[in-house]
Amino acid sequence: MNPTPASPTSRAATALDVALPAWVDEEVRATGGVLPDVEERMHLVHRLAARNHQEGHGGPFAAVVANPGTGEIYAAGVNLVLATGLSTMHAEVVALSFAQTRLGLWDLSAVGSPVELVVNWRPCVMCYGATMWSGVQLLTIAGEGDEIEQLTGFDEGPMRDDWAQQFADRGITVRSGILRDEALEVFADYGNRDDVIVYNARGGAASS
Amino acid sequence: MNPTPASPTSRAATALDVALPAWVDEEVRATGGVLPDVEERMHLVHRLAARNHQEGHGGPFAAVVANPGTGEIYAAGVNLVLATGLSTMHAEVVALSFAQTRLGLWDLSAVGSPVELVVNWRPCVMCYGATMWSGVQLLTIAGEGDEIEQLTGFDEGPMRDDWAQQFADRGITVRSGILRDEALEVFADYGNRDDVIVYNARGGAASS
Repeated sequence: MNPTPASPTSRAATALDVALPAWVDEEVRATGGVLPDVEERMHLVHRLAARNHQEGHGGPFAAVVANPGTGEIYAAGVNLVLATGLSTMHAEVVALSFAQTRLGLWDLSAVGSPVELVVNWRPCVMCYGATMWSGVQLLTIAGEGDEIEQLTGFDEGPMRDDWAQQFADRGITVRSGILRDEALEVFADYGNRDDVIVYNARGGAASS
Repeated sequence: MNPTPASPTSRAATALDVALPAWVDEEVRATGGVLPDVEERMHLVHRLAARNHQEGHGGPFAAVVANPGTGEIYAAGVNLVLATGLSTMHAEVVALSFAQTRLGLWDLSAVGSPVELVVNWRPCVMCYGATMWSGVQLLTIAGEGDEIEQLTGFDEGPMRDDWAQQFADRGITVRSGILRDEALEVFADYGNRDDVIVYNARGGAASS
């Protein structure tokens, strides 16, 4: 899909247009909005990711911001690069931004109890930084490794080998390997589409 | 400054509220909107950065997206973390997002001629990725190095030693050292304030 041309009204835009598709909150409400088990939270993320690329909003990536103690879901997000026309609107940025908006806190560490970001794979380099600056204290991922790039075609960017230690140095714990096989199934389904949209700058650069 | 508590209406927010302060475009228009010389473009960035922290919108960071051949300014951005309540709204993300919105292109490489991002220091790790996925082909920075962290107190995050080569591998050229001393003056002015706001998650993590 080629980028669409500018509309005349966007030329002088002074606000960003980032709307969360209604079905995202509907999927959260369908779970009751409280998921005390980490596998339940990850399963929600996988369901959102699988639906997102079918809805055409962006790639097969989703994220949830939650209270890992009570299971309360503060916000969910999906990759909205195609829906918003903004290359930064990866799932993690969307979920963190809606959590911060709804809680009225640009620093989620001010919630008072630890906040968790649940994602269906290790974040790309941009979302690695976005996670670091958000105030979350726990990152839960289905997995990490090259499978995501092999199955989806997306470039995840250059990460440091000590990425998890760098998180730990800043008070962020990483938990990996939650419902890993389900993540790979979603990526494979996406990669097997005959109309895959890898919305990469220069055909090789974009991500979760 | 402590994060402000949530307002009742934000609890169910389904859109992000990211407005560009009017003075940003006013500063661009005051230049005529076309700055063929790279030092002119960087001088605009420094002026925006200096004004931004005085206006209270966020840290002393700004960015411009331009056509480096003609000097046309597509969009300018400043750090809006405090103004928007969103930790991802660093200057680069803001400038790239408004350029993409105004041009109607989530991939700026589709403009047809190379697009430049001008920033008053090397991007933090999040904005490193944001730049990589944006479609820009030229990154112009005033400088790089630890001075920014020493003068402002912000954490820039863990960057790889080969960060510039990783850009080059993806078709992005880095040009550094444009009006470097002016950048340091702005950072020093910020650091010397007696009411410095380092809006860091956990007191040590946030950036340009």
